[in-house]
This record gives sequence, structure tokens and C-alpha cells, in this order.
Amino acid sequence: MAGSRMAAEIAEQPAVFDSLVARQGDFASVASLIAARRPRFALLAARGSSDHAALYAKYLIEVLLQLPAGLVSPSTTTLYGARPDFTDVLYLSVSQSGGSPDLVAATEAARAQGALTVAVTNTPSSPLSDAAELSVDIKAGDELAVAATKTYSATLLSLYLLVDAVRGGSAEAVQGIGELASTALTAPVEDAVERFRAIERVVTTGRGYSSATAAEAALKLAETSYLAARAYSGADLLHGPVAAIDEHTGVVAVTSRGHGGTALRDVVQTVHDRGAAVLAVGSAAADTPADLRVAVPETAEEVAPVLEILPLQRLALGLSLARGVDPDNPRGLHKVTRTV
Amino acid sequence: MAGSRMAAEIAEQPAVFDSLVARQGDFASVASLIAARRPRFALLAARGSSDHAALYAKYLIEVLLQLPAGLVSPSTTTLYGARPDFTDVLYLSVSQSGGSPDLVAATEAARAQGALTVAVTNTPSSPLSDAAELSVDIKAGDELAVAATKTYSATLLSLYLLVDAVRGGSAEAVQGIGELASTALTAPVEDAVERFRAIERVVTTGRGYSSATAAEAALKLAETSYLAARAYSGADLLHGPVAAIDEHTGVVAVTSRGHGGTALRDVVQTVHDRGAAVLAVGSAAADTPADLRVAVPETAEEVAPVLEILPLQRLALGLSLARGVDPDNPRGLHKVTRTV
Repeated sequence: MAGSRMAAEIAEQPAVFDSLVARQGDFASVASLIAARRPRFALLAARGSSDHAALYAKYLIEVLLQLPAGLVSPSTTTLYGARPDFTDVLYLSVSQSGGSPDLVAATEAARAQGALTVAVTNTPSSPLSDAAELSVDIKAGDELAVAATKTYSATLLSLYLLVDAVRGGSAEAVQGIGELASTALTAPVEDAVERFRAIERVVTTGRGYSSATAAEAALKLAETSYLAARAYSGADLLHGPVAAIDEHTGVVAVTSRGHGGTALRDVVQTVHDRGAAVLAVGSAAADTPADLRVAVPETAEEVAPVLEILPLQRLALGLSLARGVDPDNPRGLHKVTRTV
Repeated sequence: MAGSRMAAEIAEQPAVFDSLVARQGDFASVASLIAARRPRFALLAARGSSDHAALYAKYLIEVLLQLPAGLVSPSTTTLYGARPDFTDVLYLSVSQSGGSPDLVAATEAARAQGALTVAVTNTPSSPLSDAAELSVDIKAGDELAVAATKTYSATLLSLYLLVDAVRGGSAEAVQGIGELASTALTAPVEDAVERFRAIERVVTTGRGYSSATAAEAALKLAETSYLAARAYSGADLLHGPVAAIDEHTGVVAVTSRGHGGTALRDVVQTVHDRGAAVLAVGSAAADTPADLRVAVPETAEEVAPVLEILPLQRLALGLSLARGVDPDNPRGLHKVTRTV
């Protein structure tokens, strides 16, 4: 049946989350090796969906660990042969498959140049986990659907568990996350599917932690429903892209209780005033000017992205089916892309 | 006349470039202060178009200075109060207006935490240049059109001049860049306007240095022509977004001679095979599978983005006029956005 793989993997997420939280000890042991090296800077390398997980981790690392953090371009190494001095750098490579040749090469180069390299993958025996000094296995199980769902959310939760453990935490903010995920997966998205099925142009937006969710939602919509979907940080949206937003545009506003959701409110009001169809998703959806709302259980703000993406995966699945597309067989998409 | 401001500012670029290169000494004096502090890491903060200039600078810094470099999220400071230790960090804040409150706050915080802060702006008496320890004035003159054109390219060239001076260079690769820009501005874009005017969905792509151009071109098309335009790194495009590319999609492939252009070729072949209307722009356009080509004079690869964007600005202008939109008065767009 069309979309059955994607649907099954979306439904597995609560169990995947529970088993990750139960493995907190695994994360704590990698974290203690990281903490012992006292990194001074963090760099994150990723591609595709994992790039959005890396964006989330950048916030975690700066806010929770108080380390300067930035997203790198692996191409500086692989295309141009850059060999910077990576002493004191924590270099996190995020890849569900662990098989992207350019990430492997960039990780090898960073390690050779002195970085503490850590791979976060769903494939413990992958070239990437071999290339890195330390590795974290997200253990989400095989992902057969082409669109990443459970591996994305499991990567977020793994990054949270890792960063929380580095600061000496004990995963308090994610206790019970599996049950909250089950609740998030029951939120009805049918009205949103109905409203968005004829819309060709979708903008997703968020602030702070939720900007990762907005980026991932846009990619998911683009790759499963063939929508022209594009993410803007709420901070960037009013700079220029707002000109393209009108009554023919659908806007997905990802908004959770906390600083990010509060900072997004004026942005959403502006696009709502311009006549866009606004769908608010998150624990602050009820407080957000919108045509449609999908509530997500409230958590600590830094954990919200783990849950926010769940109804958006269901929206992508529902939209693709409503538009006559099988998301399990998107045109021209292969599971592992061999970027060189 | 519709678009006359944007057209005038596009035409000013050769003169702006010449005067920047003539001021190489200004850049050298700031650069010597940077070099004397021997930064070990570089972080870049920016919003909107300037974010694409920052992406370009990330490549310059890693490849030419061999310093690890990453893009930060100012929100970690302004929304979440992160105060990482920025000792040994070169913190470059890029903003044409120099007036974005969140960039100013993030720069002040970085400076207070030990970073060497450098502002790159078109407004020397701006809050941002006051907040930073050092500042570089791109001197592009007033920009009256809402869409940034000359300030974007002048920011790129300024970043090149600065980074080149930090490594002890003497701006050799950009001698004569004004004349090359004049040539780039004469390349006909009318066929591309005609081919793209009825297309609603545009994907822009590039690899390496040219990925900054692809990102900026997508923003420019979205904000002036209200197209659903979205940039993907050539490395990401085949991961998932390729599913959304078909004969109804326009693809702008930014491709210059060098490693980036070579790495992009297979990606462009794939989207071309899928029936997309492919426009190749750059010095390697002639070698690229495409329906339409706009040539740009060849330079050293690290300078190519300064020229690549010029015909794409003219494409954005031409498309907006062809679609009955005045790019000087886009809906809802203000020149300085006060993100907090």
C-alpha cells in the first residue's frame, strides 16, 4: 500500500525513543570521554536531513555546554583540500547511513588534524563510525522508507542525550518522551492535509531550537509531496522572503512554549495578515495566530524539536497520498547518496 | 519606472569593485590587526543576504587561512542567553545595514566573552560597527532598491580582500575585477527570462564557493519575482529534493571553472535528464549540460562568486518585470528588519 513503509516507521518512534532513553548509560560513557578532553569549540558536519539535526545540536551545544559552535561545509576539505588545525575542536559528524563519502573524508581529515571526532549514525559498522574516534549508535532500526522519519527524530534525541550527559545531566527532561510522542502522533492532521493539498508553495518557519524542525519539515514536504517548500528562520523571513507570501502560500509555523515560540509570534502575525494559510504546530500553537493548529505536548524547550516533527511527518505523508504520490517510491530518490 | 532603482544599482557594481580594490590598503591594516592576534577559529554571524556572504567567507577562511570556520546562530545568544568562551575566536559579523539588533547583541556578547570581533558593513557609523572591535566599510554607497545587489557583491569582494590580506596577499586575483564585472553585466539574460517567466518552482544549486551564489540567487528570485525558489547544495540535492524536480521545475546551476564546477556536473546531468529547464550560469556554463547558458568571465575560483551573481541579479530583475512586479516595491518588504 502506498506510504505503508513511511507510516510504519513514523509509528515506531515512541518505542525508539523509549529504548534510547533506557540506554542513557551508553551516552554517558561516550560523554565522559568527550568531557575529559575539554573541547573548546564544536563543529558539526552533516548532509540532508542530518544537517537539520546538526542545526539542533548547534543550539544544544552553545546553550547547554556554553561552547562556541558552528556548522561546517565538508567541501572545504573534500573539494579544496583545506587542512585547518583542529586542536581543541569537538567535531560531530551526523549521518543516518554513515555512508556519505564526503563526510567520511572530512571526518578523517578533522581527526588527522587533531579534532576529537564523534560520529552519530544509525549504522554502527559504517565507514563514518570507523573514521571517527568515538561513535554513538542511534539504534533506530532499519529504515526502509526513503524519507527519513524515525532516524531523524532518533538522531535529535541521541544528540540531546549526548549533550545532556556531557554537562553531567541525567536525561531528566526526556523521561516519558515515548509516551508524549504517542500523544503527539494522535493529533489529527486531516484538516491540515485538506487545507494544504491544493497549495503549491509552502514556507516553513521557526525560531531558536524550532528552526531545525522548520528546515526538516520543508525538506520532508519537498521530497514526499513534491511541494515547493522552503524554510526560513523567523529572523530572516521578514528581511525579504515575506514579499513572496500571499493568500496562495501555506505557512507552517513551528512554535513551542519558550523563547523561540515567543520570538516567532510577530512573524506569524505578519504572514497571517498577508492572507497566507497558516498552520501552527507545537506546544504554543494555541497562542499563535493561525488558521489551523496542531498541538504537541509541552516539554522543556530544548527537547521540543524531538516531538514537533512528528505531526509534520504525518502531514507530509498525508499530503503525498492526497496528491496521488507514493512517498515510499519518490521519483529519482535513492537512500544513500554518494557525494564526493 | 518599475525596477529602475534596482537596475541602477546593479549597473554600479563595476565602479564599486574598482574602488574597493583601490582601497586594498584599508583592508590590509585591519587584516594586520587580525593576523597579529593569531585567531584559531572563525565564526560568522549574519542574516538574510549577508548570510550567503558569510557562507562564502567560511570557504575563504578554511581554504585560504586554514582556520576552522562555522556559521553561528545569533539566537543562541539573544534568545537563550548563551555566553560561551570566545577566546581565540575571530567573530565576523556581516550586515549591510549594520542595524539588526540581534546581530549587534550577539557581537557585543562575543566581544565581552573574548572574541576578536570584526564588523563588515555598508554603514560605518552603525550600531554593529560600534559594537565590534574592528570594522570594515564596504563603501558601496546608499542602496535604495529593496533587494540587495551591490551591497551583496561588495560584501563578497570586501571579505575576499580582508581574508587575502590576512594571509599576506596583495589582491592579485581581483585586479581588473571591475572590467570583468562590466563584461559579466553584458551577458544576455533575455532568453532565460523568457524560459523562466512561466515557471513557478525554481531550484538553484552550486558546489563549493558557488553554493553561496546559489543561495543568494534563490533569495533574490523569491523576493523580487515571488517565485518559489529554493537553493540546495549540489551535495544535498540528490539526497531527497531531486524527487521534486521534473519538467515543471527550473534549475539554476551555478558553475565556475574549478573544483566546485567539476563536482556539480553529475548533479546537473541528473536534473537535466529529469526534464527540468536547466540554466547554467558561470565560467563553466559551456561545459555543463543545460538548456540555456549565461557565461561569466573566468577568474580564480575563490573570486568567482563576486561575478557569478551579476547575471542572476539581472535575471531576477527581468523576471520580476516580465511577471508584472515592481522589484523596487515588493510587497511587505522593509529595508532593515529589526529582529530581536
